[in-house]
This record gives sequence, structure tokens and C-alpha cells, in this order.
Amino acid sequence: MDIVTPFQFALVYNAFSFTFATMAAATLFLWLSRSQVSSAYRTALTISGLVTAIAAYHYLRIFESWNAAFTFKDGIVTATGFAFNDAYRYVDWLLTVPLLLIELILVMRLSREETMSKSVRLGSAAALMIVLGYPGEIAPDIATRAVWGTLSAIPFVYIVWELFRGLGDSIKQQPANAQNLVRKARLLTFASWGFYPIVYMAPYVGLTGGTATTTIQIGYTIADILAKAGLGVLIFLIAVRKSEAEAESGHKADAA
Amino acid sequence: MDIVTPFQFALVYNAFSFTFATMAAATLFLWLSRSQVSSAYRTALTISGLVTAIAAYHYLRIFESWNAAFTFKDGIVTATGFAFNDAYRYVDWLLTVPLLLIELILVMRLSREETMSKSVRLGSAAALMIVLGYPGEIAPDIATRAVWGTLSAIPFVYIVWELFRGLGDSIKQQPANAQNLVRKARLLTFASWGFYPIVYMAPYVGLTGGTATTTIQIGYTIADILAKAGLGVLIFLIAVRKSEAEAESGHKADAA
Repeated sequence: MDIVTPFQFALVYNAFSFTFATMAAATLFLWLSRSQVSSAYRTALTISGLVTAIAAYHYLRIFESWNAAFTFKDGIVTATGFAFNDAYRYVDWLLTVPLLLIELILVMRLSREETMSKSVRLGSAAALMIVLGYPGEIAPDIATRAVWGTLSAIPFVYIVWELFRGLGDSIKQQPANAQNLVRKARLLTFASWGFYPIVYMAPYVGLTGGTATTTIQIGYTIADILAKAGLGVLIFLIAVRKSEAEAESGHKADAA
Repeated sequence: MDIVTPFQFALVYNAFSFTFATMAAATLFLWLSRSQVSSAYRTALTISGLVTAIAAYHYLRIFESWNAAFTFKDGIVTATGFAFNDAYRYVDWLLTVPLLLIELILVMRLSREETMSKSVRLGSAAALMIVLGYPGEIAPDIATRAVWGTLSAIPFVYIVWELFRGLGDSIKQQPANAQNLVRKARLLTFASWGFYPIVYMAPYVGLTGGTATTTIQIGYTIADILAKAGLGVLIFLIAVRKSEAEAESGHKADAA
């Protein structure tokens, strides 16, 4: 384990604790808000809350793993010999990234066939992207990291293309008061997901040791908060506005 | 305890943590979704969530037992002398496997008499199957493993026969939009359950030591995710569709 400075140790330590609190709070907010939307949108809020709940669990584990990897005593950080478990992030993403796409699809309320086929296609591409990224993350050299990173980018590009082409038409059919928010949710997904490969490439630009570790951990943490808790709030707002629009137009809100 | 390589240790460690998160997430999803289905199907979702909740508890215990059995420090795995507790799996199955069959029967909404008699017969056969398998799992030699494994296969064959013969007629009476999903749920049950005896037989083909341990643990873990969380999602989809079909046809959805 690369040694970190006392400042870096405390920064990552507090960021992990902050993120656990944020994810847990987002979960409770999303689940308590289910009763504020029509039943057609409750599954979208259920799944948004699942994503942040799964992330809260993993941030608790990551926080504990960080503390097990170092001892910070008398102002000095020493490595304990226990490895910091990077894999928690990938295990988390394997579950949450397909669910993030599914919550975005569900809140759009497409036909049953479209919902199923888009969920399966985008969800599988997302899982493939995570599986291909992991061998690079743990690779000892930058060349191997770059190969797996590039392979992982292929499903990523496919997802972006689907979000902008396939969902573009569906956005035009959303009620007027929600269209803009759905576009924002799509943009947030694209922008926050685009942040992960940038963090992944941190070692390419010569970052090493404790600085690389700190940059990667803080970078992924910010991206996770935006992509999960941030998107969850947008999904809530969209669900509220669409419930209102449909109640006004007398559109019957069936169970999803 | 057979010693495992650092890669095997980390693989099983992360698989157990992943499965805990998956089972806990499935539980919350199934219980929150109770309000999305008519009251006739709520018991099926309650029990599906119980199955994954019981599994989440046992995966937490198995994860802790795995960590207690080994020390992974400075890149080297050593055995601590504390045994890895295999029995958690059988204790889990003794509770969850009869419940899995009951959730499948409940979501079909048969007559009260059929529901009771099928639940008792299939539930008892499932419990017997687990009880007969355990002495083989902990047997020191392959011959003893094979004897108990074969005895355990008798109730398994009976269950498969009941699923395909006894439930076959009932499937034809399901609403059109749910028939295919009920067939998929039955097939998933059959296929994922068929995976357990294959894993059970891993030592027959000469796998030993850490490789046998890793294969068995990862194999059972994949089978558990499919049989419990995977089936739970199908039960949810069937319950939603049947609720809709019955609401449309004016069929009164009584409490189960």
C-alpha cells in the first residue's frame, strides 16, 4: 500500500464518511417520497433509493477498509500491511450502474416493451463496461490499464449513443413541465459518468504513490455523489411533475 | 482449512460482500413493491423478500467466517486455525428453499386447497433434500459424499416432476400476459437448482484444496443469486402483470 500524508489520509477518511451520510440520507429521502408521486413512478423512486442504499453500504465498507490499511497516530501515518480493498467500488458499480440506467428509463414511462428492451440492453452494456474496467484498475503497469480502459470505453460509447439517440425521441413525448428536467437527468448521467474515465486515467499523467491514491479516491467519490444522489433528486423532481401533469390531463396513472 | 491464494481469497471475499448487498437490495425492493400489486399477490412478495432477507443475513455471517478463517496481510494469506463455517449455507437453505417453492405457488394464485397441499408437499420435499445433502457436504471422503448426494437427489427429482407435471396445467390458466413469465420462473428455479448438485460434485472430478474451496463457494454464490434475487424479480413482474390483468377483467383481488 502506498503511504499517504496525514493530510491525504484525513481528506479521504472524511470524504468517505461524508459520502456514507449523503447516500444514506438520499435513500431515506427517495423512499419516503414514494407516497408523493403517482403509483406509475414509485418503482423509479424505489430503484433510485436502492442505488444510494447499495452505495451507502459500500462506502461504509470502503471507510472501514481505509482505516484498516493505515494507522494514524502521533501525527504519523503508517501502513498496517492490510490492503485497501479497491474492489468494493467495482462490486458496487456492477450492481448500481445498470440500476441507474433503469431508473432513468422507468421515470420516462415508455411502453412496456420499450422499457424491458431498453433496460436489458443498457443494463447489460453497463455491466460489461464495469467488468472490462476492473482488470485495468488493479493492473501494475499503465499499458495494461490503458488496454482494459479502452475496452471498457466501447460499451460506454454505446450507452451514450443510446441515451442521446434512442431516448431523444422519447424525451419529446414527455409533458412540457418535465422535458427540461429529463434532459438535465440525461446530461447529469453523461457528465458524471464521463468523470470516471478521467479519474481512471490519473496514473497516465504521471501521478504516483499517495497522490495518485488520494486523487483516485476523491475523484470517484465526487462522481458517485453526482451520479447517484444527484440523479436521485432529479428523478424525484421529474416524478412529481409528471404525476401532476398526468393528474391534470386526467391521464390514468396505472401501477408500473 | 485448505489455504487459498491471495487472488482466491479476494475473489471469495468480494463475492460474499457483493451477494450480501444484492440480497439486501432485493429484499428492500420486494417489500417496497408490495404496494404496487393487488393484495392477492402481496404475500408472494412478502415471502420473496423474506427469502432474500434470510440469505442476506447468512451471507453476512459467511463473509465474517471467511475473514476469521484467514489473515491476508503484506500480500500473504495464512490460515488462522478457525474453521470456515460451511453449515451457514445449509441452515439458510433449510429455511429458504421451501419458501422459494411457496412464493412460486402463491404467485400462481391457485385455489386455497391446492395452495395448501402443494406448499406442504413441495416444502417438505425441499427440506428433506437439504437435510440429506449436508452429511455428504462435510464428509471427508468422496464415497460418503456421493451416497448422501444421491439420497438428496430423490426429493429433488420429485420436486422437478411436481413443477413440470403438477404446475403445468395451472400455468395454462394464468392470464396471457403472465403465462410466459410464470414459465420463465419455473425454468429459472429448475436451472438454478440444477446448478447446486454440479457444484456439490466439484470434488468428484479431482478438484482439491483451495481451488475446490473457491469453486464451491463461487458456484453456490452464483446459484443463490439466481435462485433467490433473480426469482424475486420475476415474481414481482408476474404479480404486477396479474394485478393489471385482473383489474382490467374486473376480477376481484381478495387478500391472500
